[in-house]
Amino acid sequence: MSLSMGACPHAWRHHLQHRGHMWATSPAFRRQLFLLRSLAPTCAHGGRASSSSLQVHAMSAAAGPVYEADAEAVVRRITPPLDRARHKGQAGKIAVIGGCREYTGAPYFAAISALKVGADLSHVFCTKDAATVIKSYSPELIVHPILEESYSVKDDERESVSSSILAEIAKWMERFDCIVVGPGLGRDTFLMDCVSNIMRHARQANIPTVVDGDGLFLVTNNIGLVEDNPLAILTPNVYEYKRLVQKVLNCEVNEENASEQLTALCQKIGGVTIMRKGKADLISDGKKVTQVSTFGSPRRCGGQGDILSGSVAVFSSWARHFLLSNEQTTEKSVNPMVLGCIAGSLLLRKAASLAFEKNKRSTVTTDIIEFLGQSLEDISPAGR
Amino acid sequence: MSLSMGACPHAWRHHLQHRGHMWATSPAFRRQLFLLRSLAPTCAHGGRASSSSLQVHAMSAAAGPVYEADAEAVVRRITPPLDRARHKGQAGKIAVIGGCREYTGAPYFAAISALKVGADLSHVFCTKDAATVIKSYSPELIVHPILEESYSVKDDERESVSSSILAEIAKWMERFDCIVVGPGLGRDTFLMDCVSNIMRHARQANIPTVVDGDGLFLVTNNIGLVEDNPLAILTPNVYEYKRLVQKVLNCEVNEENASEQLTALCQKIGGVTIMRKGKADLISDGKKVTQVSTFGSPRRCGGQGDILSGSVAVFSSWARHFLLSNEQTTEKSVNPMVLGCIAGSLLLRKAASLAFEKNKRSTVTTDIIEFLGQSLEDISPAGR
Repeated sequence: MSLSMGACPHAWRHHLQHRGHMWATSPAFRRQLFLLRSLAPTCAHGGRASSSSLQVHAMSAAAGPVYEADAEAVVRRITPPLDRARHKGQAGKIAVIGGCREYTGAPYFAAISALKVGADLSHVFCTKDAATVIKSYSPELIVHPILEESYSVKDDERESVSSSILAEIAKWMERFDCIVVGPGLGRDTFLMDCVSNIMRHARQANIPTVVDGDGLFLVTNNIGLVEDNPLAILTPNVYEYKRLVQKVLNCEVNEENASEQLTALCQKIGGVTIMRKGKADLISDGKKVTQVSTFGSPRRCGGQGDILSGSVAVFSSWARHFLLSNEQTTEKSVNPMVLGCIAGSLLLRKAASLAFEKNKRSTVTTDIIEFLGQSLEDISPAGR
Repeated sequence: MSLSMGACPHAWRHHLQHRGHMWATSPAFRRQLFLLRSLAPTCAHGGRASSSSLQVHAMSAAAGPVYEADAEAVVRRITPPLDRARHKGQAGKIAVIGGCREYTGAPYFAAISALKVGADLSHVFCTKDAATVIKSYSPELIVHPILEESYSVKDDERESVSSSILAEIAKWMERFDCIVVGPGLGRDTFLMDCVSNIMRHARQANIPTVVDGDGLFLVTNNIGLVEDNPLAILTPNVYEYKRLVQKVLNCEVNEENASEQLTALCQKIGGVTIMRKGKADLISDGKKVTQVSTFGSPRRCGGQGDILSGSVAVFSSWARHFLLSNEQTTEKSVNPMVLGCIAGSLLLRKAASLAFEKNKRSTVTTDIIEFLGQSLEDISPAGR
């Protein structure tokens, strides 16, 4: 719809206003309106948004409006003040499950990004081969060499090894505010089985879980791992989203109906939050669709998705704590997983923009990570 | 010729003008002229070159003119615009085949240079010993520890190991826009056999291949690996060129006849592009000889050839895409491998110059890599 309407702005605006009036009475619209109001939205010119200006903000897909999130307001609202009385760990403890013989950069990017956004502790659970390398990237991370791939496990030991891996990680699980499953995980079948067990355990322990990269490959082939889990976030790129739609909805991606399809996908899986990454990131939990379209960088170097998954883990933890500590307010109807996606998306885009400004075509993922701190400071100064 | 004529500039200029007239009717000359025109050549004073000024630009060897490439125009023409709608990988996916127990710096330099020039993804396929170290240099690279050297393979397992190495790399091959064979490869016989198979596979899959370092040792002893492959680029230094000439032309290097000899070498091998590195880099595909003589740096620290091979891989991929997407134009007669060599040569020289200005005698390869981005930005601004 956004494509077909694009050619005729008058028809598009009329359509939105019309839809706005029709929609104004629906619970979904009221919830959306509330979310945007409660998070102190600003319009494009920096002023506070009125309910009527929301209609102008809205971008339409055939199935319903896609609102541009006031992502800066979300970041400001959920980022916790730096309280001198706080202890280590209270700003967030994140763990990344990933890193194998082949991939070590991705889990490092996700874990270091979590720290650079502001988490206190960042762990990586990976294979022995990967651990030495990931440790060498940075002394800031706590790296556990506990996963195994098929080649290092004898057939008759698979069950016992799998059990001891789960037991080892279970000791840690409840300490984490969020885990990220997938960066640099690879696709080894034994490792995939172990990670499936870890995901089931995290779910039982109510630990929010961001699924990216090879974790999405795992989940797409075993959707039960995230089905009906409101604490799960999937962050597919264009290719991963295509496979997810094919598998779950049994059809192809429909760009003209992007919003409706994303909503349907979330509903079919049941309760999960999905951030469909692209030129604009579309975010939905099956109830509404929000987008973040702030321009980041035209550079598409590999690794930016890992920054995003680590950032989303921190922000969704912060959003969850924020909403839990404000239980008396009506903001409890807001989904913290959605807020985490909005904030993570904006921060990556801001950091990528600053890194590109400095490094142009030679921008690599490490350059973007360097700007996470400044980007967050620009939006939500720590000293306030 | 350039040496013997050097003592008598009048004779040299007269000779060129004379040759220019004679050559003007040949298809080779018209193609060269078109290439230089279509790539918006500038003369030494910055103005647009006329056909007559080309004669002044030309440096002659006995066999024919050697044109100074308008390398900046080539870089500007083939470097793709940074399009916001693009996805990860569309600006280039490069793989380096190299890295063994002894050498780890060279494949790293080649692979990281590809990223810094602007590729989206850069892989390294190396031995297990090398992989841990190369990974630890940078989390930006994807490093596959799949190659083996003789010492780690039992005699009766050589065939099966060789097959599984090829199978593993074959899974990836079609994703790459270009591979670089040789940086830090070493000369282990088993490894050489495996890499020969990889080169044959790349050729069948029509993947452009830059051959440098120990890859040139392999190719010099088995010229069939690149024979009649228009997607192969050889980048020999003075010693590697000497061995290549001895082996293929069965004679010694003739400096006074450099252009003719390079042309003959390309023609004898059949269709490959050769960049003979030196004070000026001479580039030919057997049809014409172009040179890049922009001054770089007087520092000769090891590793600059690796930067060059990674850069040439990216630029030749870009040139190929540029020409394929402009099929209707007559530019399709231009060899993208030649353009890739011209662009890579210039970029290294510019970066080496900036690095030397800053670091003087202590300039090392890493310092030069740091300036690849600025050098490209100076020539072809990303924000245009």
